Parts: sequence; C-alpha cells; structure tokens
Amino acid sequence: MTSERITVAIDAMGGDKAPAEIVAGALAAAAELDVDVRLYGREEDVLAHIPEGVVPDGVVVVDCREVIAMDDEPAAAVRRMKDASVVRSAQAVRDGEADAMISAGNTGAAMAAALLRMGRIKGIARPAIAVPIPVPGQHPQVLIDAGATVDAAPEWLVQFARMGRVYARARWDIEEPTTGLLSNGEEEGKGDTLRKAVFDLLRKEPGFIGNVEGSDLMKPGRADVFVTDGFTGNIALKSIESALRSLATLVFQTLEAADEAREATRVVLPLLLRAAEEYDPDLTGGAVLLGVKGVCVISHGSSTAPAVVSAARVAIECVRAGVVQQLRETVTDAG
Amino acid sequence: MTSERITVAIDAMGGDKAPAEIVAGALAAAAELDVDVRLYGREEDVLAHIPEGVVPDGVVVVDCREVIAMDDEPAAAVRRMKDASVVRSAQAVRDGEADAMISAGNTGAAMAAALLRMGRIKGIARPAIAVPIPVPGQHPQVLIDAGATVDAAPEWLVQFARMGRVYARARWDIEEPTTGLLSNGEEEGKGDTLRKAVFDLLRKEPGFIGNVEGSDLMKPGRADVFVTDGFTGNIALKSIESALRSLATLVFQTLEAADEAREATRVVLPLLLRAAEEYDPDLTGGAVLLGVKGVCVISHGSSTAPAVVSAARVAIECVRAGVVQQLRETVTDAG
Repeated sequence: MTSERITVAIDAMGGDKAPAEIVAGALAAAAELDVDVRLYGREEDVLAHIPEGVVPDGVVVVDCREVIAMDDEPAAAVRRMKDASVVRSAQAVRDGEADAMISAGNTGAAMAAALLRMGRIKGIARPAIAVPIPVPGQHPQVLIDAGATVDAAPEWLVQFARMGRVYARARWDIEEPTTGLLSNGEEEGKGDTLRKAVFDLLRKEPGFIGNVEGSDLMKPGRADVFVTDGFTGNIALKSIESALRSLATLVFQTLEAADEAREATRVVLPLLLRAAEEYDPDLTGGAVLLGVKGVCVISHGSSTAPAVVSAARVAIECVRAGVVQQLRETVTDAG
Repeated sequence: MTSERITVAIDAMGGDKAPAEIVAGALAAAAELDVDVRLYGREEDVLAHIPEGVVPDGVVVVDCREVIAMDDEPAAAVRRMKDASVVRSAQAVRDGEADAMISAGNTGAAMAAALLRMGRIKGIARPAIAVPIPVPGQHPQVLIDAGATVDAAPEWLVQFARMGRVYARARWDIEEPTTGLLSNGEEEGKGDTLRKAVFDLLRKEPGFIGNVEGSDLMKPGRADVFVTDGFTGNIALKSIESALRSLATLVFQTLEAADEAREATRVVLPLLLRAAEEYDPDLTGGAVLLGVKGVCVISHGSSTAPAVVSAARVAIECVRAGVVQQLRETVTDAG
C-alpha cells in the first residue's frame, strides 16, 4: 500500500482515436481521480488537444518524437524506436517517474516496451494479460492469459493461475479466489495435452476447483479466475466481445426500426443503455500485463476518453494494492 | 441429390429433457417436415410420451433397452452398450434403415457411435463438428471443428477447412465459400505453432483468406468458414453462447424489473423476442459431425422439441445435398 500521490504515464499516441481521445481521457483522469498524469507524445500534437493549449495542474506533457503504429512489428519497433511514446511511458515507470503506464496502442508493442524497459519479475517465466470478464450481480471473473503468451508450457499456466489469484484478491477483495482451468468439458480428463498436464500441476494449488468451460464465463458463482494460454484466452475474449456487440446491435436496431414502438423505445432505451454499461469494456477498464516489474494497463485499440479514465482507475487500484510486490512474494513463496 | 423419401433415426433417450421433448420433437418433425422418423429408445418410455400411445403414420418406435448417460465415458459406453439408443440410431444409418441420425445426448457417445458404426470416410484422418454461427442479415458462418478432435495435427485442420467448405456450399448455396484460420490476430505470422503450420498448408487451398479473429465471428462479410481445432472451437462456441445468454437475460430482466416501463415493455418485448430468434440455437439447428459415412446431427444437451425439429431440418438438408458423397469426392480430389 502507498499513501503517496500516484503518477500515471499515458501513451498519448497509442490507439485508433489517439491523440484526441487519449488526451481528453488523460485530462479527465487528472481532474476526476486522485492522480497526476504524464502524457507521452509529440508535444505539438498533444497540446493541440488540450483546451487553449494550457496544460492543467497535475498534468505534464513529455515530448517524444516517435510513434509505433498499430501494424508495426512490436518487438522490432520497440527496439528501434527508443523515443516512441509507449517506450518512454514504460521507461518512466522503470525510472520511478511514474507508478504505472497506460497504452491503448499496439498491444504487442506495449507488452514489449514493458518487458524490455521494466523487466520481468524474478521467477516469473512469462508475462500474462489479465482481463476482467463482466458477471452480472457480482465481481468480474479474471481471464488470464488473454493474449500475452501463446505456445505456453504447463508450468507457465500455473504461474498465470497464481498471478490471477493475486490480481483478483487485489482488485476485488476476494479473500481466497477460486481458479478454474478453461477446458472443453468440466470432467477431469477433458482437454488437450496442454490442459491435462496443467490440470495435474494445478491440483496442488490453493483455490483450484477443476476444469471450467466457455459456458462458465460471465456466469455467476463459477471460478473467480479462468486460467488459459494466451492463444485460447484471446479467442475466448474476442468471441465474447463479438457476441455482446452483435446482440446489443440487434437489440438497438430492432427498437429503432419499429415505428409502432417509437414511444415505448423512448422509455426502455435509457434503461437498457444503463444496464448494458455493466458490459461496456470502456467502463469496466483495461487489461493488465502481469509479471513485469511495474503496473502496465493495456486499453483496447478503439479506446475513447472514458476508457482512458477507466484504465487510470485500474492503474491506481493496482498501485494502491501493491500488485507488483504481491506477485513478487507469491511467486517466491510458491517456489 | 435424392428424391426418395428421407428417414431420420432419432435417439429418443438422449438429452437433458429426454424422452419427453425428444419424442415431442420427433412427432412434430414427422408432421411438419417431409420425413419419416424412427425413434430409438425404451418402447414403454417412448410410448408414454406419444399422445394416447398411438404411434402416428410416418413414425416407427424401435425398442432398445440401453441408455448412455450424459456422464458415461463415451467410447467405453458405446462399445459396451450395443443396444443403446444412440448406438442403434447410428447402426440404422449404416444398415440403410435411416438416412441420418440425430442425438441430443452425450456428445462424445454420439460421435463414438457414428464413428464405430458408420465408419470414417476413406482418406479423412479425423472427424470434425461443424456448427452454424449466426450472422445478422446473412447466412451463418461455419465453425469447424467445434469439439470433435482436440490435439489436432496441421493436416487435419486442412481437411476440416475442405469439409467446412463442402458443408457451407451444401447448406447455404455459397458457390465458393471463403475460409479463415481462427487465430489471435489477422496478420500472417500470428498464432501458436499449430496455427503457423496450418497457415502454410492452407495457403494452397481454394477460398483461403488468411487469419481471422474471435472478433470476426458473428460479423457480416467475414470468412464463411472458420477453421480451428476442436479444443479452441469448443471454447469459442461456448463463450459466444454464454455471452449471448448473459446479455439476453440482462435485457429481459431489465425490462421486467422496470415498473415505470411496464406498458412500453409490453410493446417492445415481442419485437425483441422475434429478433432474438435469429440467435436461438434451438431454431438455428444442430451441429453436424463431418467425416463419417452418414449424416449425424448432434443437438445440444438441453434440446427441446423445436430443437429436434431444427435438427431434423438440418439432417434433411444434408441428405438432400448429398453432403457425405461430396465430402468423399472432395477429399479424394484434393488428395
């Protein structure tokens, strides 16, 4: 726990709607949350999106000249562009100028920047992305790994499980989070070769409740942490997002298209929009890269200002809860 | 194509709601569709669910005494219980007493029964489950393999792609279906070791458009066929189903809970229910096991009577289109 004022480094140039929405979100975060913000990007581009060009209190603009594009090859770009906004953001955390970094840009580049600049926590073989999956009426589930490490070894997934528990505990105060192994059936013995090997290892881990299925995602009362490799986690996460988007679109288009229901729609639409906020990734907050020596929040590529504020909220929670320190201790303890 | 009358063998004892809903669905299929039905199950149990115990024209009840439970180990159960309803259904197809089989029971057992009784199509290494994924405003996408074969070799996925194209063409008249490899990013080079190997092989296949993502599922204008291994396909399918169920529940609960919107809800609810039918697995029809020498439709475990009718519709379409013969030719042609 820290009671000092927290500083967040924000990659102003990363994301489909950068820098406009990122800068707007950064300013909103500085105004609404108890946080200082360092904005990394081309100074003239950042200032152009600050009202009247007057940088408010609690915000610092740090000029850096390079930008990694969405389609750049991540590791190579991070190595080559030392003055890239995302690289400088990660460096700020390493150098103690910021407590956490946020990027909505090229996910691979954010990961590579965090890995190369902050470094891995000793004993952790591979980093993993933890993403909150909304569950109606309760805290979210943690899906880990949602895309950092494909081709994972069984032992790495055990570390993901441990990191997921630390994260669930830190963010949602779950005392003893339960862990499930995402598989193609609940019964022991289900799964591919990787899952079967992981199951045997997870058996000895606290909180492990066995296999869970895709159908347990978003369902109340199931595992708090869903453990998987980065390939499968990415597919599960994007499938869920796509299904939600598709059905939400269908609902709203149906209501809008119905002339006979114009009056009724005016009544129910605000109710539905409010209810749907629970599922809105812009409001539920970013993914976190766990396993590096610093807090790194990865917001989705189409992040708008509210998404940046949510990401800042996640960053603050992680810093306050001392997630990095706890990961360090857990991994050391568990050997 | 066949112009003869089609007979479907239905496993009356398979599914959470068997035999009541299965028998009801079978009777409805015989009444509504141009099909004869053979119902396999314990005669007394089946007759108990036929109104007044009078078996209607076009329906035959075939007594068999064994039932494979949802949690039985599939292959062992199929080998041991030669008089099980699902085994006898598969046998009926092999013996030419039926053109297709339908089961809503233990999926593994249905697959094992089809494999053991009908046998694999020569040249096809492993069977795959093809599932239609609803896409608003267009034909469904085909997800293959949705769960038959975990730990797949790269060459098997190439066969899945070919089978998926045959199926998409047969069911939705798509002349040259496009195929995408489900991966964790669109760019070539994305994916785990399996995906990279498959990508290189698929490159030479007709219709291949490259990698597709979870976010492309349910999205109009993307690949017609999504190719993946049975492990990943199962996770993707169940994640989608869970997300749709979760959001649909949220929408309906929100409308029902709003006292001030009671009148408005009465107007919009029927519109929404009608729109949502497009996403209802009970109405979009069952999964099909491809690669065996016969038509095998696998309906989900909680199938109700309408789901059985949909499954019968799928079975009829597959028989009429000569899917099995086409699979045979495609695999032979492609070598």
